[in-house]
Amino acid sequence: MELLKKRILQDGVVKDNDILKVDSFLNHQMDITLLNDIGREFKARFADNPITKILTIEASGIGIAAITAQYFGNAPVVFAKKTQSSNLDGALFTAPVHSFTKGVTYNVQVSQKFLTAQDTVLIVDDFLARGQALIGLIDIVRQSGATLAGCGIVIEKVYQGGGTLLRSRGIRIESLARIASLESGSVTFL
Amino acid sequence: MELLKKRILQDGVVKDNDILKVDSFLNHQMDITLLNDIGREFKARFADNPITKILTIEASGIGIAAITAQYFGNAPVVFAKKTQSSNLDGALFTAPVHSFTKGVTYNVQVSQKFLTAQDTVLIVDDFLARGQALIGLIDIVRQSGATLAGCGIVIEKVYQGGGTLLRSRGIRIESLARIASLESGSVTFL
Repeated sequence: MELLKKRILQDGVVKDNDILKVDSFLNHQMDITLLNDIGREFKARFADNPITKILTIEASGIGIAAITAQYFGNAPVVFAKKTQSSNLDGALFTAPVHSFTKGVTYNVQVSQKFLTAQDTVLIVDDFLARGQALIGLIDIVRQSGATLAGCGIVIEKVYQGGGTLLRSRGIRIESLARIASLESGSVTFL
Repeated sequence: MELLKKRILQDGVVKDNDILKVDSFLNHQMDITLLNDIGREFKARFADNPITKILTIEASGIGIAAITAQYFGNAPVVFAKKTQSSNLDGALFTAPVHSFTKGVTYNVQVSQKFLTAQDTVLIVDDFLARGQALIGLIDIVRQSGATLAGCGIVIEKVYQGGGTLLRSRGIRIESLARIASLESGSVTFL
């Protein structure tokens, strides 16, 4: 997606040759026009799939998923939760997810009410690096018996291997910007 | 907002005469059509305000804010973060926020890059109860020097006093459903 790559080159900031900060338009401040472009592109790539539900994980995936859902007939969005809450009760699907950026392991949770064997699910998230969050979300989809159409990712850090691993398992991954390297503090796309 | 009240009566679940669970359409699974109705209503109520930025707090506010922004000319959305992250650096506005539902105090954070004295801010959130989250977000707006247009709240639990407190301080609060009581396990609107 050329528009996204251009935006990453223009407004992304590389830290420590490894972290790509896109907080000015994607995951702290959100550019709603860009999120609509992203949602439209996900729809183009998954046009043939009868998506009934969009699954993401708090917090950065939520805005992307909500806007994207508008291009899939306002399919309901479910976001997996990272922490216990008195608002979360009843039977849950759970999966452990390790966050390398935050240095902690979450037990992510989705109420069993909101994913069923009748659903066809599109997973959406901002980043794919080592694949930890996606592996957890895919595990939750499998537990529910739903059909996984695939994963729509805004930015894939290809050199961290998560995408390669998941594709080798037969998971369809559509990444809108694929980064080969952040070395020397500059972004090189695949 | 009659449509919202109807939905709360239809799909909301009252727990312990105090907690209103709306996880099937608002803060775990999100009904995107309803979020658009909510965004349209916020626009109707703040139509005369030159909103340049929408501020919310992770996680439940993000979807509401992203959809609402579309009715304010795709104004950028900024969501305050509750936890430290290696993605969050540079100068920050911070404010302590106590969550009664989770039993912890967060130091919520917004990068100083994304709120300035030139902004006119609409704060958006799913619930207003004791007002802790709003007090923190309003404090952050004040630190930035931005103009606060007001707060758009989906559900106000009026009997918990946060709205009364904030209105007494001159803050404009627009709540789309105002709940007087959850006693006996049933929802009574104001």
